[in-house]
Amino acid sequence: MFKKILIANRGEIAVRVIRAARELGIKTVAVYSTADKNALHAMLADEAVCIGGAQSKDSYLNVRAIISACEITGAEAIHPGFGFLSENPAFARMCEKCGIVFIGPRATSIEMLGDKAQAKETMKENGVPVIMGSDGAISNIHAAKTLSRDLGYPVMVKASAGGGGRGIRIVHCEEELESQMKAARQEALACFGNDEVYIEKFIENPKHIEIQILADDYGDVIYLGERDCSMQRRNQKVLEEAPSPAPFMTQELREKMGKAAVTAAKVCGYRNAGTIEFLVDKNGNFYFMEMNTRIQVEHPITEAVTGIDLVKQQLLIASGERLSIKQEDVKLTGHAIECRINAEDPTKDFRPSPGKINSMFIPGGFGVRVDTAAYVGYEIPPYYDSMIGKLIVHGKDREEAIAKMNWALAEFIVDGVATNVDFQLKLIRRPEFIAGDYDNGFLNRTDILADERGEG
Amino acid sequence: MFKKILIANRGEIAVRVIRAARELGIKTVAVYSTADKNALHAMLADEAVCIGGAQSKDSYLNVRAIISACEITGAEAIHPGFGFLSENPAFARMCEKCGIVFIGPRATSIEMLGDKAQAKETMKENGVPVIMGSDGAISNIHAAKTLSRDLGYPVMVKASAGGGGRGIRIVHCEEELESQMKAARQEALACFGNDEVYIEKFIENPKHIEIQILADDYGDVIYLGERDCSMQRRNQKVLEEAPSPAPFMTQELREKMGKAAVTAAKVCGYRNAGTIEFLVDKNGNFYFMEMNTRIQVEHPITEAVTGIDLVKQQLLIASGERLSIKQEDVKLTGHAIECRINAEDPTKDFRPSPGKINSMFIPGGFGVRVDTAAYVGYEIPPYYDSMIGKLIVHGKDREEAIAKMNWALAEFIVDGVATNVDFQLKLIRRPEFIAGDYDNGFLNRTDILADERGEG
Repeated sequence: MFKKILIANRGEIAVRVIRAARELGIKTVAVYSTADKNALHAMLADEAVCIGGAQSKDSYLNVRAIISACEITGAEAIHPGFGFLSENPAFARMCEKCGIVFIGPRATSIEMLGDKAQAKETMKENGVPVIMGSDGAISNIHAAKTLSRDLGYPVMVKASAGGGGRGIRIVHCEEELESQMKAARQEALACFGNDEVYIEKFIENPKHIEIQILADDYGDVIYLGERDCSMQRRNQKVLEEAPSPAPFMTQELREKMGKAAVTAAKVCGYRNAGTIEFLVDKNGNFYFMEMNTRIQVEHPITEAVTGIDLVKQQLLIASGERLSIKQEDVKLTGHAIECRINAEDPTKDFRPSPGKINSMFIPGGFGVRVDTAAYVGYEIPPYYDSMIGKLIVHGKDREEAIAKMNWALAEFIVDGVATNVDFQLKLIRRPEFIAGDYDNGFLNRTDILADERGEG
Repeated sequence: MFKKILIANRGEIAVRVIRAARELGIKTVAVYSTADKNALHAMLADEAVCIGGAQSKDSYLNVRAIISACEITGAEAIHPGFGFLSENPAFARMCEKCGIVFIGPRATSIEMLGDKAQAKETMKENGVPVIMGSDGAISNIHAAKTLSRDLGYPVMVKASAGGGGRGIRIVHCEEELESQMKAARQEALACFGNDEVYIEKFIENPKHIEIQILADDYGDVIYLGERDCSMQRRNQKVLEEAPSPAPFMTQELREKMGKAAVTAAKVCGYRNAGTIEFLVDKNGNFYFMEMNTRIQVEHPITEAVTGIDLVKQQLLIASGERLSIKQEDVKLTGHAIECRINAEDPTKDFRPSPGKINSMFIPGGFGVRVDTAAYVGYEIPPYYDSMIGKLIVHGKDREEAIAKMNWALAEFIVDGVATNVDFQLKLIRRPEFIAGDYDNGFLNRTDILADERGEG
């Protein structure tokens, strides 16, 4: 096992990794930007190195500074967390070249799965269901028109290098196609430095269900059940739950998706923790969307229902250990829900609300977990994402988990910045959520705050 | 189920009960003393009633004020928590007379089990092993001498109405017997208003192992595994774990003790949650010590390993529901440890250290639970016990639980008052604790802080 690792991230996920490392007796090195000198992750780690300015490109995306920090402190491995450099194959390759273990998949896997069109092609060839669409990137408008007519409108135009919901356009009829393709290409170029787009059939009102997998260096791959992440606002996840509510989800569907996810990981020579995202239509047909080659924000709900510490597993796998968990050992117990708590103002179009936390109350108790790097007196900087914590509850069934989330959200107080706590509370009290009957368009078509503005 | 209950307690246990009630859709009424007007339990409850002055006798022990608060607010039932009125049969009877449900056992059971000598007699008659000793109270010094000679020294002199470690004397030889009996009687009279004492064989270096039970109104009783509470300082529990470490504890011994505990509960017509405390000698012989007729401070470690919410079970049972959990459904998963975090100064003989909490950091994350009513800016009053919270960890095995407790304690910061956090950290790093090889005399014979004072 490693003696010392560096965590190339910030916020609650950096704290999460520090705790897992401590539990395995590994020393930790935090890196931080000048804006983060009072950040919790920098205080909790055994060592902390300033790697540059407040802007991400100067610090958390600054490959040279991070590699230097690793060499100076003698850290043997780097955990990239999520976001930032976590899915950057060049960074993973640089680590490999410098003799530093990248705690994640091989650079080649990241690269292959990072190209969404290529990934889809690989899955299709290996029998993992994908949404029908163009064979890779498409640029010719006439070819696009023919294809879209064959698929049937609506179709989606998506950036090949995309992610986070950017570079995506839904096209409802042939008249819109050319302009929407142009717009998607421009956005793709601006966001990802690559204007390639592809087209696929648009599945109406699907659920977003993802499968967590773990894979070791020896070809063993297991799946750890699913997470229902359909509660999305503009392609950003808001609330996640595990398992996906019945009766939509069945043990049969879970096993089918699980096996498909294991296949997906195997055909990429995948290693470490990963997540295969699927769209699932009303009839339980599922389609590979993409694979996230890192730990996910919502990993704690899987930890709650399986009892398996995913970040510790990442460290064990990266150090070369064999998976000690067999597929038949994975049992799902109870139900878990995560609400992302963001410093944002839902009444002002969810505008980020950085600033100082004057006072705060974090709920606790049986079945309640809060992962956060915030504390009283902490000033949330404006440079990074607005998530200030994750509230995770675990109950013996979905009803108990919802009841727990109700009181836990009601207790949660952050004073000094606007938050989405009330929004989340209203969301979990919606009949559609209580019934488990929602798809990934629900939050886009539903005004959760309508009653507050007298529009309900 | 009740619509509204009153919680006749304060601190973290009052908060614990509020949360369980919320989860069942029950409204809550807090009561508070004038010293507790800024206490968390009073803020979190749906209603809060001031019931008197800072001294416990004027407020939390003020039966009339509490019953009045119940009647004024229309609460149907009272949860007594632990301490205060929780084991007072007169209070339970008063509730019964006023048509208020006492969330606990019947007054007759409390009464019977409150008289330690009578309880022992009942257990003996029903085949639950007890420590040999006098048949009930003993006052004649000659009879005491004869008995003690038969039992063999050392023997213990204990107050019949005792509890909390008071009114107890260990007698090593006949010369000490008379003076120690006198001292025990005086202390018993001062503490409990009753000078009756009894004598029993003193078991050297036993473990203190207790069995949690749940009993409903229909005669069903189940046991939920054991808690090892041998880590005691002057008869006050400091750290508890579940299960009790192997190889001392075996599945066979657990089942034998569990069955004895169920018998103990049944012969008292017991109802609701209760705990049977046993002393266990080196050879695995166990002896009934007493039954605590209330929820225990250390109940969360049982919740962690069984997944059963004990306080919700208390509410369900009190409302007349049948136990829905069968003995065969009770499975122990992983290992849990609780450290009591007290506002006290271990370097000054554990002197209580009330005062204002200027800043605080409470650890969180996977498998970590903190039950507390403290917050930044809260002033711990000097009138009540010094516990400011309970840090509970749950790991897949004892090794993981200990590793988790290590980082969680290291993260725990309370600024403004002295605490025992460092003491607990030193304790869990002791080889005896790591080996699981300790008995209930360990903390009395071991100076955990010796190295700090240069005495180690």
